[in-house]
Amino acid sequence: MSNTTNHQNKISRITLVGAGPGDTDLITLKGIKALQAADVVLYDALVNEELLAFAPADAVKVYVGKRSGDHTYSQSVVNQLMVDYAINYGHVVRLKGGDPFVFGRGFEELEFAAENNIPAQVIPGVSSSIGVPELQGIPVTHRGKSESFWVVTGTTANGKISADLIDAAKSKATVVVLMGIHKLAEITEIFKAEGKNNLPAAVIQSGTTVNEKIVVGVVDTIVDMAKENNITSPALIVFGEVVSLHPQFQPIKALYDTLA
Amino acid sequence: MSNTTNHQNKISRITLVGAGPGDTDLITLKGIKALQAADVVLYDALVNEELLAFAPADAVKVYVGKRSGDHTYSQSVVNQLMVDYAINYGHVVRLKGGDPFVFGRGFEELEFAAENNIPAQVIPGVSSSIGVPELQGIPVTHRGKSESFWVVTGTTANGKISADLIDAAKSKATVVVLMGIHKLAEITEIFKAEGKNNLPAAVIQSGTTVNEKIVVGVVDTIVDMAKENNITSPALIVFGEVVSLHPQFQPIKALYDTLA
Repeated sequence: MSNTTNHQNKISRITLVGAGPGDTDLITLKGIKALQAADVVLYDALVNEELLAFAPADAVKVYVGKRSGDHTYSQSVVNQLMVDYAINYGHVVRLKGGDPFVFGRGFEELEFAAENNIPAQVIPGVSSSIGVPELQGIPVTHRGKSESFWVVTGTTANGKISADLIDAAKSKATVVVLMGIHKLAEITEIFKAEGKNNLPAAVIQSGTTVNEKIVVGVVDTIVDMAKENNITSPALIVFGEVVSLHPQFQPIKALYDTLA
Repeated sequence: MSNTTNHQNKISRITLVGAGPGDTDLITLKGIKALQAADVVLYDALVNEELLAFAPADAVKVYVGKRSGDHTYSQSVVNQLMVDYAINYGHVVRLKGGDPFVFGRGFEELEFAAENNIPAQVIPGVSSSIGVPELQGIPVTHRGKSESFWVVTGTTANGKISADLIDAAKSKATVVVLMGIHKLAEITEIFKAEGKNNLPAAVIQSGTTVNEKIVVGVVDTIVDMAKENNITSPALIVFGEVVSLHPQFQPIKALYDTLA
């Protein structure tokens, strides 16, 4: 695609839209309005494709899915596609899972748009970090159990576990780890090193979709439980006393009460 | 109101709905559908009243606003109203600012509904903690600047600053403080005690509404800036290198570069 005058005489612009965790009804009204006004939709692996129905039938829909460990498109290719489509077709909606600014590299996309003089804006979405545990009945904050929550990525730019996770494991915050399922064993070791073997923990796969699965246990048991239940990516991990509020934690609590 | 049979023969149920930060278009489609099916809407101070237009014209709309320092209704009164209305009118939508599980006491409301045998569910909303900075162009995470974000309340149950904030000030996370504007000076002292006098900081009042205001500075300057600009509640505070991405930070950066 060349950097030519837009043959449709449409104004080039880009809107990053947070699609939410997966359930199509969790997109915002603002996100729907952007899709309805899209000439092009570039969408990620974690986006529910049913959302494309909000875009006009003749809008161009392009899958630019990336998952950790499966780099179909590099970020620079996505950036370039986004700008090229805006130049050639007009309004590009960049539809991203969850919220665009929560490990979504959304700000980088806005910066790239600005460097290329394409007006761009962002529309927040329900972040999976809050919404997925929530719909499982796990509140990230709850009086008497948690006065804060800390959201950390399990996959940093250099492929290592974030140093922030080591600090998070020391804290009293509810800790939510996104994109960390492939490093679950390593991550639980960090909590064990803090003596938090019995801290309640949950892993939720494909939250708010038909493929949703949850395992609820404690730091010492959660790795085996995730394996036994074939939990795969995408999945998030929640550590904290708030996990004990989940109904599936009650038998675990009863067991520990017996042992105590 | 007495605990009588529902005179309208409607099924009693409760839906907690996150209204998002303020802009009515930031509510989810799922939230709108719940409002459309409401017999009663109980709404908070931080909810944009224009959202009530999604509810049927004959639905009962009740303001149960609370703000920090202005306890119009206690939580126990809100809980009781919610259950009484459900028993008497059918479907109660409990419309809350932001997300119901982010310092919203939403889980307590679900627990109270369960104790009273009223079926209840929760619908997540865009949390102000992420969405308000985002719409100001401040991403809570950004490669090279932040691998995590930590959301803390400035007003705990006992009225004191959360001990978690002391740990948060030591961390490399982006720190977002909700309901902390009345304690801004005290909160910045915590960051100063860690030697973070020059850490970028922003205060955003009434994010995504017509009353929105922002001040951008560093830990050492943000208290005076908030005073000079008459920033009032509701407001959130963001501490972290990501704040330096805001356009208003550029002259500050230039000044520090000159001094350095």
